[in-house]
Amino acid sequence: MKIEKDDRLILITNDDGLYAEGLSTLIDVMQEFGKLVVVSTIDSRSGMSQALTVKMPIRIKLLKETDKKRIYACSGTPTDGVKIAVNQLLEREPDWVVSGINHGSNASVSVIYSGTMAAAIEGCLYGIDSVGFSLNNFSSQADFSHSKKYVREIMNMLEKNKLPKGVCLNVNIPSVDGDGIRGVKVCRQARGNWREEFEKRKDPMGKSYYWLTGIFQNHEPESEDTDEWALSNNYVSVVPVSVDMTAHNYIGELEKQIGK
Amino acid sequence: MKIEKDDRLILITNDDGLYAEGLSTLIDVMQEFGKLVVVSTIDSRSGMSQALTVKMPIRIKLLKETDKKRIYACSGTPTDGVKIAVNQLLEREPDWVVSGINHGSNASVSVIYSGTMAAAIEGCLYGIDSVGFSLNNFSSQADFSHSKKYVREIMNMLEKNKLPKGVCLNVNIPSVDGDGIRGVKVCRQARGNWREEFEKRKDPMGKSYYWLTGIFQNHEPESEDTDEWALSNNYVSVVPVSVDMTAHNYIGELEKQIGK
Repeated sequence: MKIEKDDRLILITNDDGLYAEGLSTLIDVMQEFGKLVVVSTIDSRSGMSQALTVKMPIRIKLLKETDKKRIYACSGTPTDGVKIAVNQLLEREPDWVVSGINHGSNASVSVIYSGTMAAAIEGCLYGIDSVGFSLNNFSSQADFSHSKKYVREIMNMLEKNKLPKGVCLNVNIPSVDGDGIRGVKVCRQARGNWREEFEKRKDPMGKSYYWLTGIFQNHEPESEDTDEWALSNNYVSVVPVSVDMTAHNYIGELEKQIGK
Repeated sequence: MKIEKDDRLILITNDDGLYAEGLSTLIDVMQEFGKLVVVSTIDSRSGMSQALTVKMPIRIKLLKETDKKRIYACSGTPTDGVKIAVNQLLEREPDWVVSGINHGSNASVSVIYSGTMAAAIEGCLYGIDSVGFSLNNFSSQADFSHSKKYVREIMNMLEKNKLPKGVCLNVNIPSVDGDGIRGVKVCRQARGNWREEFEKRKDPMGKSYYWLTGIFQNHEPESEDTDEWALSNNYVSVVPVSVDMTAHNYIGELEKQIGK
């Protein structure tokens, strides 16, 4: 693949691995928008958040190249993949980083744990317009067909309007038949957390071990301006995510408490 | 250790492992404030961000118990450790989650990659007052002695003022002699990112691999209200961190672009 000056160069990644249906769907749509460099892992790396591989070396393998796209396998986390693509694999900085389509919602606090959103956040830290897409269905057999329309709609919007510095998008798509989707809704991250998070078992030697599990608890199910409400009501949710985690509105109060 | 109704119960964790000097220092100070449950890993888990262990079971081992503290080794990430402590190990929810003292700064965007801050953020998601402490010195031989005074100062403040829901503290301490520290400064997260992030090498078979490395680049070195400025000027920086990553001030604009 030769990257010309006028080509739109798009870095595609995810956290469900190279063989995930969500990634294939994203590649299908994004080919309409430019030339693609895909960097993913062979296996899934869900729940990796913004984790970095610092104690092990990272391996990269070019698996396939055509006129329109290149596909690499990366041994690291989704964040490693974005970093290594921008720093080592690409001839120039990509115009977009697009991550997903994740198998499972990344609404509410899942934005903090998600490898898919971490990849978008990483792109954003480089100053690149970045979006993470997720379908509200964890199944590896999930039907992504109706997602394409909304990926297209969001990316068409990004073509016309660059994102501000330090902001990327977290887009979650309901897992219903296309006709059931009521539209696209800009939202804020719902307040919530996970509960009953472990299953305790005994191994064949009689020693205990735990599996991480759990149920998401929405702390504000009635708030219609949240991503969780939108998803539950069959809207595509779009949350602008800031990489600045400062609680700006608490700075003044904290200064008083610290006595300065 | 018996936990009485009036005891302050404090969960202590870090991402540098159980044998880190920063953890010992934190335990020393925090014993003044209550009964401690320490959950950490044998080895370091730096750069793990909010990563979860979803594909492997998690093992927990009680290593030591006295009247005043319990120490557990956890096979998972710092976030796993907080989750398993709150859900399985503790008789009741802790009053505080205190993480660190990290060997190395977690100022600016490091808040997003840090396992130390992830543990504090996890505590915060449970609605527990949570703080992450870091010393601006990556060395395992770093001198933490002057840090105690500032841990004490911040925790004394927390005794008097609960944090608002969804906010935890990211405290970074300069690595200078105690007399050189000019005070405590409430800050916002500086804008910055990492550059020149990989070193490419060849293995004995002639195949390439990469080590993650890099240099932090402060995008606003002149901004006196940032944590990076405070640290560089020998102030202890305190950033209130929000677990709500929504870019609230961009919602209106985005709604216009999406056409609703």
